[in-house]
Amino acid sequence: MANKITARSVDYSQWYIDIVLNAKLADYSPVKGCMVIRPRGYAIWERLRDELDRRFKATGHQNCYFPMLIPESFLKKEAEHVEGFSPELAVVTHAGGEKLDEPLVLRPTSETIIWNAYKGWIQSWRDLPLLYNQWANVIRWEKRTRLFLRTTEFLWQEGHTAHETKAEAVKETELMLEVYRRFAEEVLCLPVIAGKKSDAEKFAGAVDTYSIEAMMQDKKALQAGTSHFLGQNFAKAFDVQFQNREGSLDYVWATSWGVSTRLIGAVIMTHSDDKGLVVPPMLAQDELVVIPIFKTENKDEVLAYAKRVADALKADGRRVAFDDDDSTSPGWKFAEWEMRGVPLRIEAGPKDAASGNVVMVRRDSGEKLVVKAEDVPAKAAELLAAIQTNLLERARAFRDANTKPVADMAEILAFFGKEKKAKAAAADGESHEGTAEATGGFAEGLWCGGRDCEAKLKADLKVTIRNLPFDRQADCEGSCCLCGAPSKHRAIFARSY
Amino acid sequence: MANKITARSVDYSQWYIDIVLNAKLADYSPVKGCMVIRPRGYAIWERLRDELDRRFKATGHQNCYFPMLIPESFLKKEAEHVEGFSPELAVVTHAGGEKLDEPLVLRPTSETIIWNAYKGWIQSWRDLPLLYNQWANVIRWEKRTRLFLRTTEFLWQEGHTAHETKAEAVKETELMLEVYRRFAEEVLCLPVIAGKKSDAEKFAGAVDTYSIEAMMQDKKALQAGTSHFLGQNFAKAFDVQFQNREGSLDYVWATSWGVSTRLIGAVIMTHSDDKGLVVPPMLAQDELVVIPIFKTENKDEVLAYAKRVADALKADGRRVAFDDDDSTSPGWKFAEWEMRGVPLRIEAGPKDAASGNVVMVRRDSGEKLVVKAEDVPAKAAELLAAIQTNLLERARAFRDANTKPVADMAEILAFFGKEKKAKAAAADGESHEGTAEATGGFAEGLWCGGRDCEAKLKADLKVTIRNLPFDRQADCEGSCCLCGAPSKHRAIFARSY
Repeated sequence: MANKITARSVDYSQWYIDIVLNAKLADYSPVKGCMVIRPRGYAIWERLRDELDRRFKATGHQNCYFPMLIPESFLKKEAEHVEGFSPELAVVTHAGGEKLDEPLVLRPTSETIIWNAYKGWIQSWRDLPLLYNQWANVIRWEKRTRLFLRTTEFLWQEGHTAHETKAEAVKETELMLEVYRRFAEEVLCLPVIAGKKSDAEKFAGAVDTYSIEAMMQDKKALQAGTSHFLGQNFAKAFDVQFQNREGSLDYVWATSWGVSTRLIGAVIMTHSDDKGLVVPPMLAQDELVVIPIFKTENKDEVLAYAKRVADALKADGRRVAFDDDDSTSPGWKFAEWEMRGVPLRIEAGPKDAASGNVVMVRRDSGEKLVVKAEDVPAKAAELLAAIQTNLLERARAFRDANTKPVADMAEILAFFGKEKKAKAAAADGESHEGTAEATGGFAEGLWCGGRDCEAKLKADLKVTIRNLPFDRQADCEGSCCLCGAPSKHRAIFARSY
Repeated sequence: MANKITARSVDYSQWYIDIVLNAKLADYSPVKGCMVIRPRGYAIWERLRDELDRRFKATGHQNCYFPMLIPESFLKKEAEHVEGFSPELAVVTHAGGEKLDEPLVLRPTSETIIWNAYKGWIQSWRDLPLLYNQWANVIRWEKRTRLFLRTTEFLWQEGHTAHETKAEAVKETELMLEVYRRFAEEVLCLPVIAGKKSDAEKFAGAVDTYSIEAMMQDKKALQAGTSHFLGQNFAKAFDVQFQNREGSLDYVWATSWGVSTRLIGAVIMTHSDDKGLVVPPMLAQDELVVIPIFKTENKDEVLAYAKRVADALKADGRRVAFDDDDSTSPGWKFAEWEMRGVPLRIEAGPKDAASGNVVMVRRDSGEKLVVKAEDVPAKAAELLAAIQTNLLERARAFRDANTKPVADMAEILAFFGKEKKAKAAAADGESHEGTAEATGGFAEGLWCGGRDCEAKLKADLKVTIRNLPFDRQADCEGSCCLCGAPSKHRAIFARSY
C-alpha cells in the first residue's frame, strides 16, 4: 500500500519518519546516526544547493575544497572552539595499516584547517577579501539523531571569509544571513525570524552568531541557518596577519556561515500533511505527474491523449512524471503521488480525452480544476507559482497564530506548559522526544541579557532563546520576563529541534 | 613574478607541480597526501562535474548519497575487494569520546555500503534496474602522492547500478565507458584508448574492468576512467536476491564506474606548456581576459573602450575577466594570465581604441589577430571552438607519434629503455618518480594472456598492460611479444601514473 503515514495528531515524530521513509527521501544506515539520502531526497538537495550556490556566486563568492581530515592539534588552537566540538569528534587513529603519529579528526566544521591555509595565502590587504565557500560532508557524533534533522554525517556548505576590517566582516555576516533569509522564504517557503543569538547559544569560537529560525507544525523552532562574525579569533589562533593600507601588521577579520541537509527536514516538517510529503514546486523533483486513466478497450487513445498533455508541458520546460504503470489502479496512484509530494496531478481519462479537458489537482489544497488541454502549460505555470506563494503564506499564518507576547514567568509557564517526559527511544534508535502538544510556539518577551535566567529556563522547561530579532529591538525598556530585572533585548523563546 | 615554471625538458614532475601551485589550482595541506583545491582549480572541477552529471542524467541515472563511514566488517564480505583495499584504509576507532565497538573505515569506494542498502530496496524485477550515482569524497591511504593525480582524499563520482540480467549489466558497463570516452574527448580534449583491463590490473571485486587510457606529455599513460562489470559478486556477498520474471529467486547483476579529480591532473599534464596552464575552453573559469593598456593621460578612454568590448562578450554569454589593476604592467599581466591558462587574451590600448580594433591572442598557439571591436563576440566564439578542437587534435597527434608496434622483447626494451632510478623524494614529500625520458610511449603488441610474462614486464621495466583496446582485437593470432607463446589479445603497454 502506498499510504502508511501516521497522523500528525497521533504521533508527530512518527509522522515525520513515515514521510521520509515512505516517500523514499532517505533511509537508515548500518552506522548509527548516519543516513542514506535516496534519489528522491537527493533531487531536493540538488535543487536547493544549485539555487543557493547561484546566490553565493551572485554575491561574489567562489567555491573551493579543503581536506576532511584535520590534525587533532588544530582544534585545540581556539579555546572555545575545541570546547564546543570535542564531545562530537570522530577520530582516525590508524591508516595504511599503521598507527598515526597524530590522530586526525573528521571535520565537524572547517575553520581550523581553512585558517591554517589562509595564513599562507594572505600577506597584504591586496589579498583581501577572500570570499570562499565549500560544499562538503561533515561529521558530528550526535547522541540523538533524526533523519535529515540531526545526523552524524550531514552535507552542508560552509562559507569562510577573510576581511581587512571589522566593519567589512560584520557587513558580510549580515549579508549572508540576509541571503539565507530570502532563500528560505523564496525557495523553501519557510518564513523565518532573523536575529542575533544569545551568548549561550552562539557558535563555539564566534564573537556573534546570527540565525534564521523557523517554526515547525508542532510549534517547535528549527534553526535553519547561521552566520557567524568570528572577529579576529581564528586569525589570532592561526597567526594570520596582513600588511594593512597604513603599512602596519594587523590580524585578519573573519566570518563563517552555513546551512545543511537539515533544511530538507525543515521543509518536510513545515509543509507536509497526513497524506505525505508537500514540497515547494521550486524544489520538487517532478513538478507535475500526468496519470492516464484507462481500461483495456480505450488504453491506446487515452495514453496518446495523456502523452500529448505531458509532452506539451515538457516542451514548456516543466519537470513531468508520467505514470502509465498498468499494475496499479488510479486510486493507488493518486495516493502514491500525493505521498511523494508532487505539487500538481493531472488526470486524463476517456471522458477527458473526448471533451478535450483534463483534471488538475493541487497537492497543497486538494483543489480540483477542469482545464482545456491546450491551456494546461499556462495553467500549470500559474498554479505552481500559486502553490509556491501559498505554502509560504500558510506557514506564516501558522507561525503568527502561534506567536504570543509574554510579560512574566507565569505567562511563560501558561504558554509552554511542562515538558513532557521523553518517550522511550524506539527500536530504531531514533529520538522521538518532544511531541506537538509539548510546546506552545514562539513566545516574544523582554530579556535582561543575563545568562542565569536563560539557563534556568532551559533547565526547567527546555525552552531556549532562539534569537533576538533584528527588527524588534527598538523599544526594549521594561522588565525581563524571566527574572524581572531591567530588560535590554526582545527575544523569541521556544522549544527547538 | 608571475612566471616561475620549471621547463618540461628540465624536470617534468617539477613543471607539473609549478603549474598547479602557481596557477593557484591547489595547495598542499598539513595532512600528508591531502590537498586543498583552490577556487581556480575548483572552478574547473565544477564545470567538469556539471557537464558529466548532465550526461549521466541524459542516460537515465539519478544521484544519491551514502555514508562515508563503513563498518570494517562490510569490506571483508567480498574476498578480493578487501584484499585490494585493506592496505589503503583509514580507520575511525574513537568517536564521541568513546572507543567504538566496531571500527569504521572511511570509504575507499562504496560498493559494500551501497549493496548493503540495495538488499533492502530490491525485491522483484520491477525494482530493477537501479541506476544510481554519487558525487563524494573518498580516502585511500597512498604512500606516494601527487597533487590531483594521486591524493589521500579525492573527489569523485561513483556509479553503482543493479540489473536483472548479465547482458543488461554488461551493456551498462560498456555504455558508461563510452560516456567517459566521449566526455574525455569532447570536453577534456583527451584522446583516449578504450579497452579491457588484464586480470592483474582489474578492480578488486570486478569480473571485468574497462578503462580509458590517455597519454601525458612525458609519454606515460594515465588511466582516466574505469567502468566495472561486477557480475553477481557483491549481490552474493550481501545476499541481494530478487524475484525474476519467471518467479524464481536470482542474484542481482552489478556495475560500478568512476572518475575523479585526477582528471584535472590529466588535463593539466596533457595541454599545458612551459608558460603555464593550458585548459580546454569548455573547462576554463574565464574564457577570455580583457587587458586594457593605458597610461595616466589616456586611462579613462582606454578603460571605457576595453569595458565596452568586455561587456559585449558578457552579453553574448562569455565568461570574461577584466584586468585593470594599475599596480602591474601589461607584460606582467600577459605572463600572469598565460600562466593561469585563460584561452583567449584581448589587448586594448590607445591605438586600438583610435582604430576601433583589438588584438586577440590564442593561449594554445600564441597566434595574434587584429579584430574589429564589433566582431569580437563572433570571433571569440569561433576561436574558442577552434582551441577546443586544436587541443584534442594536438594531443592525438602527439599520442599517435609516440605509439609504436612491438613484436618481441628486444623491441620492447629498445622502446622503453631501462627504468631510471627514482629520484630522492623532495622535501615536500611529493613523488618525483619517473621523468619524461624514462618512457617510450605506448607500445602496441600481441599478448598471450598469461599472468607471468605480464608480471615480469612490470617487475623489470615498470611497464604494464594499460588495456586491450576494443577496436584492435580483430586479428590477434601470432606470438606474444613478451614470451613468444601463442597470442590471444592485442595490448597497449606503457609506463603509467
